[in-house]
Amino acid sequence: MATVYAVGVGPGDPELITRKAERILRRADVILAPVSNPSEASVALDTIREFINEERQTIIIHQFPMTSDKSRLIPAWQEAATIIAGHALTGREVAFITIGDPLFYSTFIYLLRLLREQWPQIPIEIIPGISSINAAAAQATITLAESEEKMAVIPATAGIGQIAAALAQFETVVLLKVRPRYADILELLCRTGRTDSVVFVERVGSPRQKVLTLFSDMEAHSPDYLSLMIIKQPAALKN
Amino acid sequence: MATVYAVGVGPGDPELITRKAERILRRADVILAPVSNPSEASVALDTIREFINEERQTIIIHQFPMTSDKSRLIPAWQEAATIIAGHALTGREVAFITIGDPLFYSTFIYLLRLLREQWPQIPIEIIPGISSINAAAAQATITLAESEEKMAVIPATAGIGQIAAALAQFETVVLLKVRPRYADILELLCRTGRTDSVVFVERVGSPRQKVLTLFSDMEAHSPDYLSLMIIKQPAALKN
Repeated sequence: MATVYAVGVGPGDPELITRKAERILRRADVILAPVSNPSEASVALDTIREFINEERQTIIIHQFPMTSDKSRLIPAWQEAATIIAGHALTGREVAFITIGDPLFYSTFIYLLRLLREQWPQIPIEIIPGISSINAAAAQATITLAESEEKMAVIPATAGIGQIAAALAQFETVVLLKVRPRYADILELLCRTGRTDSVVFVERVGSPRQKVLTLFSDMEAHSPDYLSLMIIKQPAALKN
Repeated sequence: MATVYAVGVGPGDPELITRKAERILRRADVILAPVSNPSEASVALDTIREFINEERQTIIIHQFPMTSDKSRLIPAWQEAATIIAGHALTGREVAFITIGDPLFYSTFIYLLRLLREQWPQIPIEIIPGISSINAAAAQATITLAESEEKMAVIPATAGIGQIAAALAQFETVVLLKVRPRYADILELLCRTGRTDSVVFVERVGSPRQKVLTLFSDMEAHSPDYLSLMIIKQPAALKN
């Protein structure tokens, strides 16, 4: 039996992969890459192209539909878990690659649950990856937190009420997946006096990266799916 | 004039350094490593030993006292910023190394502020690093957040009231620097029914790493300075 590796490949820049991830990706027998749409390339796979060898390694591209409809998601998760387990049980090391970190808003979390329930004997190792939050802060050179500051991370889909509550209590609020609520978020930032203490980062680490620090630029922009905002309390924005 | 790099070296495992960090560390002219106590080794420097060449590169170990007394901290920050600027202005690339990520509870944040104020002409580049949070979650195989879950990160020094408020509102609460409030935290976890939905991780990624998943083991333990806890809402702990 072989180990299953969940490999965080970071935000999308091949140089922001860890040395450990590189070592495991070079030697894995099977690499499983997620895509949300069969017509699009896998961002995770594009990030690791230079390490893999398609003649020696089996590359599987698996579709996970971009939906919250569990009746469509569960079969996709189950199928991926079955493929992974099948290889691992016959002694082939599998690396499931994931953008960012495998335990932070990643599809791997659902696969982990199924693998543990159905094949508890298969060893699983998680290789952490640079999260889009740390990569975005680095690109915008905005501090995430210091000293006794508290930070909240909120998917914008959790709702404007949750975002407003966090802004009132936390020195730093990171909003993920901002596109579906973008207009409401901008309105909230105006209302709470945060227009000078926010950065917007889209597709960090990729050639299509965009970093906006001026609120007027954010107002003029239509955000991409992979976009986030880092919002500081005005008093906490010291640089 | 040369660029100043703030290089996140991750939690302490040389394999959890990014390829970009490795490239910059191998070529930097000057490497500045922080220590809190002159009698102790620099954890960041120990992490990168295999990449550096003390014959070609200048290695500077700089002490930042472990205190909240600004009258002792500010001179240490100012001295480090002056050293960094001095090298950069004469064309020598400086890499300031930091455990974890340079913009997340790191000493570099204070240096960044001084460098920007006093030498705004010096270019600064931030290389993100794997945070202890992602590394600890990977070691404990505990999910940080999924779907619409919200996550709060709180230094325990912020106080038990802040921790209790976050536990009531967030699916995941990460507590950093738990040692000074350890007994109070354990009591709070008992009172709020979280004894089965918490992990404790100390010195993640180092040879002295400790991962505790049983509350009774946490009660019997005296935590180290570099320790954290990941606490899930009981309903959110699905694996």
